[in-house]
Amino acid sequence: MTVNRRWTLARRPMGRVATEDFALIEEPFDAPTLRNGELLVRNRVFAIAPTIRNWLNPPGRSDRGSIPIGEAIAGMAGCEVVASRHPDWRAGDRLIAMARWEEWSVIAPGTAAVPPFRLPAEMDFTQALGPLSLNSLTAYFGMTEIGRVAAGDVVLVSGAAGSVGSVACQIARILGARVIAIAGGPDKCAWLRDACGVDATIDYRREDVAARLAETCPDGIGLFFDNVGGAILDAAVDRMALRGRIVLCGQIAAYDGDAPAQGPSDMMKLVYRRIRMEGFVVGDFVDRADEARAALGSWIDDGMLAVRVDRRQGFEAIPAAFVDLFSGRNVGTLIVAAD
Amino acid sequence: MTVNRRWTLARRPMGRVATEDFALIEEPFDAPTLRNGELLVRNRVFAIAPTIRNWLNPPGRSDRGSIPIGEAIAGMAGCEVVASRHPDWRAGDRLIAMARWEEWSVIAPGTAAVPPFRLPAEMDFTQALGPLSLNSLTAYFGMTEIGRVAAGDVVLVSGAAGSVGSVACQIARILGARVIAIAGGPDKCAWLRDACGVDATIDYRREDVAARLAETCPDGIGLFFDNVGGAILDAAVDRMALRGRIVLCGQIAAYDGDAPAQGPSDMMKLVYRRIRMEGFVVGDFVDRADEARAALGSWIDDGMLAVRVDRRQGFEAIPAAFVDLFSGRNVGTLIVAAD
Repeated sequence: MTVNRRWTLARRPMGRVATEDFALIEEPFDAPTLRNGELLVRNRVFAIAPTIRNWLNPPGRSDRGSIPIGEAIAGMAGCEVVASRHPDWRAGDRLIAMARWEEWSVIAPGTAAVPPFRLPAEMDFTQALGPLSLNSLTAYFGMTEIGRVAAGDVVLVSGAAGSVGSVACQIARILGARVIAIAGGPDKCAWLRDACGVDATIDYRREDVAARLAETCPDGIGLFFDNVGGAILDAAVDRMALRGRIVLCGQIAAYDGDAPAQGPSDMMKLVYRRIRMEGFVVGDFVDRADEARAALGSWIDDGMLAVRVDRRQGFEAIPAAFVDLFSGRNVGTLIVAAD
Repeated sequence: MTVNRRWTLARRPMGRVATEDFALIEEPFDAPTLRNGELLVRNRVFAIAPTIRNWLNPPGRSDRGSIPIGEAIAGMAGCEVVASRHPDWRAGDRLIAMARWEEWSVIAPGTAAVPPFRLPAEMDFTQALGPLSLNSLTAYFGMTEIGRVAAGDVVLVSGAAGSVGSVACQIARILGARVIAIAGGPDKCAWLRDACGVDATIDYRREDVAARLAETCPDGIGLFFDNVGGAILDAAVDRMALRGRIVLCGQIAAYDGDAPAQGPSDMMKLVYRRIRMEGFVVGDFVDRADEARAALGSWIDDGMLAVRVDRRQGFEAIPAAFVDLFSGRNVGTLIVAAD
């Protein structure tokens, strides 16, 4: 143990995030003295998730806190325990936990908002941060518990080629819904149709979303799983069926801008159409994570659920991968292997 | 039968509605030949409701249609049957129905979106359009069915001195909630505290709503019954408790403006706080109207529910009464008796 590299916040992104917003710091790293309950871990694989963008904003803008300038970026990672002062963990154990964009972290599993997930012997980090990740669990609980998807539903998913969206589409399809997927670009749309089996796609960059929604959902949208917000949320509200449900998973259209995510432009449409809109976070369902991983795993084993992992290589590649999330240059779940 | 007076739409209000937006038309009126299923009624009392403002907007802005220039204004009225070609109704029967701002109307009870309500012998029009009106039913079903108010809830009501709001406050209080009421002006606030028994009031014209919400709801708002929208909705979202519910009843702040009612300014707050927001219309509950009127009636008889009716006199007074709704110059339910 000689050096710990970490990606810190060099400056607050104003508008679109850029690699220059991050600084690579190298620090001498001596084995730290652990306190009771702590683990020293080596971070092997990093989950590159849009939600991290919210933590880069100035204090006060987000309920979920603000990373100070000069501090390491927080994020989920696949970690290997190097030393432990926690009775449940020992050297060599592998886990998914909230860590930081650094090579070595000290974490305290007992105080984490999302309890760490211990990898079974047969599971690798790519599986655990890809097909069976928190993103997939988000899709699972958002679609089944908040959206209560049912056979015959007309389901719309935005950000559909993303990590959460692509799994959400397929869960809805598996459970008997007709699925319309919104994504950016012909490649993503083709993947959604061919590999994910959605019934129709809308390329929001090349097509008129409102017109395509009218074509693909002539009787209205029963359930809208929204990862994007903004203009797409507005277009969807305009096509919601009576008593339609909107699952608010994320609002990625606004993460990378100067202003928070604005709500629908005509709330009376929610009144007249009796629309229910509900936000959720996957953290509320962690005690049921095993149930979700079992369902997802069996669908994957049966060839019913396609999960694409966009795996980048090298610790230094993290900021560029993160920036790609907001320019649409990723398909599926984005992870970076440290070495 | 010699003349029928009617209030028609003279021009579309742009921004704040004014009496000049309406024109009084007098037409010779001969007893019309009724078709099967129709009634000729004399309109005795008119319900002056904010929702009518939505119908004055240009076509396309509202889901609920647009009254053409030169046509009579639609609205609920207390009517007396003069002639009938409907088997269930005969001359002398009294009913509450969707009619128009005119002295005589022809209506077809069988095709109405909201079925007419037949007044029992002991009930007068003021009771039927006041304490037991559709507005009170809106408060009842919104609070119990959409909001599912429960004992111990912290309930916020906006537009609280209005016809729906004041009843919503009291239903919540009767069912064991702590109630905070937002209204404009010290008189309305005093009435809400003294007659309606709310636990606290916020005068949005004189007080800092966000600061007062922090004082009165230190542990957050469990249920927000929103009649107003706009800045008040935003302030409430900022104080919602985890898993708080927002009942979208109306958005009166925007009815009288040039733009539709904008949604919350930061949708991520709905995500992080797991907020559920749901629109509804009372029309969905008309088959349970008797249940609601029975509950409301018994609370009134027991002295638990105060309903104030702001009764104006004279058919010609209708537009001025309607304009008063948007300048806050009414308390409780506004009705106009024709003669």
